Amino acid sequence: MSLFITFEGPDGSGKSSQIAKLTKYLEDNGYSVINTREPGGTSIGNQIRDIVLKSENTEMHQRAEILLFQASRAQLVEQVIRPHLEKGGVVLCDRYADSTLAYQGYGYGRDIHELRAIINFATGGLKPDLTLLLDVDVKIGLARRREGGDVNRLDIFELTFHQNVRQGYHQLAQAEPQRWVTIDAGQPTERVQRRIRKIILERLRAQE
Amino acid sequence: MSLFITFEGPDGSGKSSQIAKLTKYLEDNGYSVINTREPGGTSIGNQIRDIVLKSENTEMHQRAEILLFQASRAQLVEQVIRPHLEKGGVVLCDRYADSTLAYQGYGYGRDIHELRAIINFATGGLKPDLTLLLDVDVKIGLARRREGGDVNRLDIFELTFHQNVRQGYHQLAQAEPQRWVTIDAGQPTERVQRRIRKIILERLRAQE
Repeated sequence: MSLFITFEGPDGSGKSSQIAKLTKYLEDNGYSVINTREPGGTSIGNQIRDIVLKSENTEMHQRAEILLFQASRAQLVEQVIRPHLEKGGVVLCDRYADSTLAYQGYGYGRDIHELRAIINFATGGLKPDLTLLLDVDVKIGLARRREGGDVNRLDIFELTFHQNVRQGYHQLAQAEPQRWVTIDAGQPTERVQRRIRKIILERLRAQE
Repeated sequence: MSLFITFEGPDGSGKSSQIAKLTKYLEDNGYSVINTREPGGTSIGNQIRDIVLKSENTEMHQRAEILLFQASRAQLVEQVIRPHLEKGGVVLCDRYADSTLAYQGYGYGRDIHELRAIINFATGGLKPDLTLLLDVDVKIGLARRREGGDVNRLDIFELTFHQNVRQGYHQLAQAEPQRWVTIDAGQPTERVQRRIRKIILERLRAQE
C-alpha cells in the first residue's frame, strides 16, 4: 500500500491549505503521510530554491532555471518521495512534473517533447498514482492571489499566459484520464476538501 | 570570424595550463579571447558550483548533480559563450558537453541518448567548432594528479572508470572527426602547446 498524489493548479487555487487539511485527516485515520512541495523539500532543494529566488540573479536564463527546478526535483524524488512510497506511505506533493509542462511548456511555449525528456530523467520515471487539478477560472485565481486587488488592471499578457497554462492542464488531464481528477476549486473550501477526501479514500480502499 | 574551442581530457592532462598559454598567445596576436571553465564561469554558475562542491551535501543524488551541471552550462552558454561568439571572438572552454558524455555516460554508465537530450536543452544546441582531446595514458594521468604518488595503490575501480572515460572520448572523437583533434598529452608541455597553436591558427586562417 502506497500512494503518490500530486496537486496541480494555479497559485491561488487553494492547493496548500487543502493539502494541510488532508494531511491531518489522513494522519488521524492512521496513514503515514509526507507532504512536500517544489522547488525545495530537501536541504539541497532549498539551496537550489535560494538560487532561483535570489533577487540579484536577474540574469538567470530560462533554460538554467528549468534545469535548476529539475535538479531540485531529482533530489526530492530520491531522498524523500521514493523512500516513503517504498515504506508503504502516502506522499502528497504540492506541484510536480505537470507544473513544468503546464507553465514552461503550455505557458511559455517551450517544446513539450523536450521538457518530457528532462522530466523523465529528473524523476527517474516516477509518475504520480493520482493528480488532482484544482481548477479555477483564471480571473478568480488572479484576484485571489492579489487578495481582492483590481483584476481590471491586469495586463493582457498575464491573463493570456494563465489561460494558456489552464488549457495546458486541461489537455494533460484529458490525455491521462485514469490519473487526473479535475476539481472545481471555485467551490467553498470545505466542499473541495470533502471531494478530495472522497477521491483519495476510494483509491486507498481499492488497494486494501 | 568566431571560434568556439573546447578542451577535453582527464584532470592531469594539462588542459588548464595549455589554455592559459594559448590565451596569452592569441591575445598577443590580436584576437579577442575569453576562456572559461565548467562548472562555474558565471555568478549563477558559481553559486551552483558551491552547491555541488559543498562537503555537507553528501546526500546529493547523481541525477541532481548532472542537472545542476547542466543548469550552470545553460547559464554559461547564454551569458558568456554565445555573446562573445556573436561579437566575433574566440572562446576557449575547459570542458564542455563532451565531459558529461565521457564521465557520466561512458564512465558511470548513464544512458548516452538521455544525456544528449539534456545537453542539447542546456546548450540550446550550441556545439564547439573544434574540440581538442588532450589524451593521456590513464596511469600517467592519475600519477600526475597525485603529484607522483604511488599508482600501484590505486584501486581497480578507479582505473577501470578512467579507462572507460578515455575510451568514451576516443569513441566521441571517432564519431565526429571533423570536430575533434586528439593530441598526445604525454609529450612535453611545449610540444603540446606548439601542436595546439598550429591547429588553431589553421582554423582561424581558414575563416579569414
